[in-house]
Amino acid sequence: MTTPENNVPKPASEQPLRIGIAGLGTVAQGVLRLLADHGDRIAERAGRRIEVTQVASRRLREEAELGSARFGTDVAALASANDVDVVVELVGGDGIAKELVTSALSAGRAVVTANKALVAEHAEALAVASKRSGAALRFEAAVAGGVPVIGALQQGLAANRIDRVVGIINGTGNFILSKMSAEGAAFADVLAEAQSLGYAEADPTFDVEGIDAAHKLAILAHLAFDMPMRFDAVFCEGISGVEPEDIGYAGELGYVIKHLGIARCEGGRVELRVHPTLVPIDAMLAQVNGVMNAVLIDGHAAGPTLYYGAGAGGDATASAVVADLVALARGAGGTTAAVTHDVAPLEIADTRSGTYLKVPVQDRPGVMAEVASVLSRHAISIESIIQHERAVQSTGEGSWVPIVILTNRVSEASVNAALAEVAQLTAVTGAITRIRVEHFD
Amino acid sequence: MTTPENNVPKPASEQPLRIGIAGLGTVAQGVLRLLADHGDRIAERAGRRIEVTQVASRRLREEAELGSARFGTDVAALASANDVDVVVELVGGDGIAKELVTSALSAGRAVVTANKALVAEHAEALAVASKRSGAALRFEAAVAGGVPVIGALQQGLAANRIDRVVGIINGTGNFILSKMSAEGAAFADVLAEAQSLGYAEADPTFDVEGIDAAHKLAILAHLAFDMPMRFDAVFCEGISGVEPEDIGYAGELGYVIKHLGIARCEGGRVELRVHPTLVPIDAMLAQVNGVMNAVLIDGHAAGPTLYYGAGAGGDATASAVVADLVALARGAGGTTAAVTHDVAPLEIADTRSGTYLKVPVQDRPGVMAEVASVLSRHAISIESIIQHERAVQSTGEGSWVPIVILTNRVSEASVNAALAEVAQLTAVTGAITRIRVEHFD
Repeated sequence: MTTPENNVPKPASEQPLRIGIAGLGTVAQGVLRLLADHGDRIAERAGRRIEVTQVASRRLREEAELGSARFGTDVAALASANDVDVVVELVGGDGIAKELVTSALSAGRAVVTANKALVAEHAEALAVASKRSGAALRFEAAVAGGVPVIGALQQGLAANRIDRVVGIINGTGNFILSKMSAEGAAFADVLAEAQSLGYAEADPTFDVEGIDAAHKLAILAHLAFDMPMRFDAVFCEGISGVEPEDIGYAGELGYVIKHLGIARCEGGRVELRVHPTLVPIDAMLAQVNGVMNAVLIDGHAAGPTLYYGAGAGGDATASAVVADLVALARGAGGTTAAVTHDVAPLEIADTRSGTYLKVPVQDRPGVMAEVASVLSRHAISIESIIQHERAVQSTGEGSWVPIVILTNRVSEASVNAALAEVAQLTAVTGAITRIRVEHFD
Repeated sequence: MTTPENNVPKPASEQPLRIGIAGLGTVAQGVLRLLADHGDRIAERAGRRIEVTQVASRRLREEAELGSARFGTDVAALASANDVDVVVELVGGDGIAKELVTSALSAGRAVVTANKALVAEHAEALAVASKRSGAALRFEAAVAGGVPVIGALQQGLAANRIDRVVGIINGTGNFILSKMSAEGAAFADVLAEAQSLGYAEADPTFDVEGIDAAHKLAILAHLAFDMPMRFDAVFCEGISGVEPEDIGYAGELGYVIKHLGIARCEGGRVELRVHPTLVPIDAMLAQVNGVMNAVLIDGHAAGPTLYYGAGAGGDATASAVVADLVALARGAGGTTAAVTHDVAPLEIADTRSGTYLKVPVQDRPGVMAEVASVLSRHAISIESIIQHERAVQSTGEGSWVPIVILTNRVSEASVNAALAEVAQLTAVTGAITRIRVEHFD
């Protein structure tokens, strides 16, 4: 114990790490609670105490446990506060949050953020500010909530050439698809339920259309492939078009449907895509249900490793934020890749996948052969096929039946060309459903 | 680029981290290969090059790629070599390995090891040597091979009070149980197959009796609960007594049988146990098959998170060794907990589990009631029961049938007392099988 009277400065490792928190929502409250209730254990693990000196938010919330921290409404002022070593940005969005993070980094203050949109879309500006001052930017909480997958990529797998990252990285979407699978329910009904449970926003676009997952995928790919964050290059397809019928057919074929983010590096090109995907039922990712997240990483030495847990929620996200604070307290740097290499993203048309096709056709002989013949002309092999008599449906136009086909792994361009032709067949009565397949062996 | 002619010493971050590797088996060869083939990427991630200056082993192996490293047979000399900053101990065992690690740490050289027996059984001596000199000891490779679960506990989950760690942490055992489950094969047959595939040693005791898993569990519990490594306190039961019939009954009840390491902290007491376990079929751990490992960690804030991947193999283990080297290159400390607190381990008799019981009884009316009545007197509830007429077996002693019972969660002591009485019933014709149950909700 040093006595406060002596004039010898404490060794750096005994000085507390002083934190300024921007925002006072559930994650910020979780961080405050963790540091208040578990401060001793965290200090043992961090080598020194982590002390919240300031909290800034547009409005004070009664329920927040501020402890000895000063409260203020000037969020931007945290960036230059004298008693703040680390700014924790939990405001969200890219307005004041972006301004705060950039100015804090420029002023030489480390930043911890859970803001995936900010990190993914403004990475370059943040990296410039961070490199100029040497201040670290950390964002473990930005992907998969409490699951330390950023740490795994940055440190645990640092020896590996990463070949692929595949993740269920949006809890809302996974909740909806899991529930549709378990109950045969329609997308719209389950979405409404998710909204009433608070799992989905009133405007669910960010989650169900895959934008949130695309942000996270851009961050994962950055660390996996030491490439710039290329949110702009992520191909993105949502889950609103997935029908219970597709989930049923996928099940017959031995698959479940998940909304995956897939980043693959092959021959120096990187593909980045988020879309509904058929996943073999015996794959670990197929077992990830409800709001849980999981990320599978293929390392050339470690092989496939998977990281699973709660992808959202105040406490889980706060756990990741405090993990970054502990790392900073121990002297660690940022989680941004130190060196990045430009890579040319692969256009979606040039990627290759197995493909699930559901083609509504007239219920008469010979139709299957017509469809198969088009696919064959485009060098697409059929691996499985389903056509049930019980599936015949009648409309004013006559009776029709879905043909379900699972193809081999072929280029999107081939599938595009083939489907354009299939759609022209007079036997085809409506829109064709197409869902990509991902394998894990 | 600094020119070699100038006299200004390079900044520390540009000086290579110099490695001495002890041992030249598959893991050491994997480390050499990773550093040789992926040195540039690893240097980018580490902030400086990692350079193997020396390799020491009792004998040289032709196939090893030594590069510019000097080879010698004096393993112990690595501890004091002038051109070695970090000793990588891949000799195994606790003879020369222990001497090397202790003297290297004492001499102020950081150590990276994959040697779980050494770390788990001699933790105290190593910690003393490490603390005295300040040299770091790291052992990511000691648990779950290439899966960075040590990093997750030490950093990713640092904010959490950990309540439980449950792992499939021995690939050999999991291979055997998975194969028995898939094929209905007997333990001895699958063990022989595992031996012929090189997944099991000629003397498989370490793996199948749970000693290897107990070493790893002691290490995990050390980091999860900030407690000393208490390998001595791990209750350990192997899988050689698991019969295909038990796997079948477990399946009927909705469970699979896994060899789990379980560490739980409750009310300041810690239970540490390795034994065959019924795992609900819908739990993530139930999906972990073959030689794969997985560790589930219950953190109070992060919730349950799971880490999955290859638990052994030269490349996967080398991946973890190099991850530790990268961490050291970046200035990180050791993976041993900085502060530990003594905890009183809970005796196995005081732990509580649901229990699977298989009781061979005479095939006559009233026997089930007799067994149930004994359990009831010991306040044990029956949650499920199976008795199949088709299971009747005849021996010289008359015909008998197994009754299979799944109990509620009760103390081991109660089960012990009840089973002692059940065994005395005249209707009971042989040894009672008992397998603990673990739940995940």
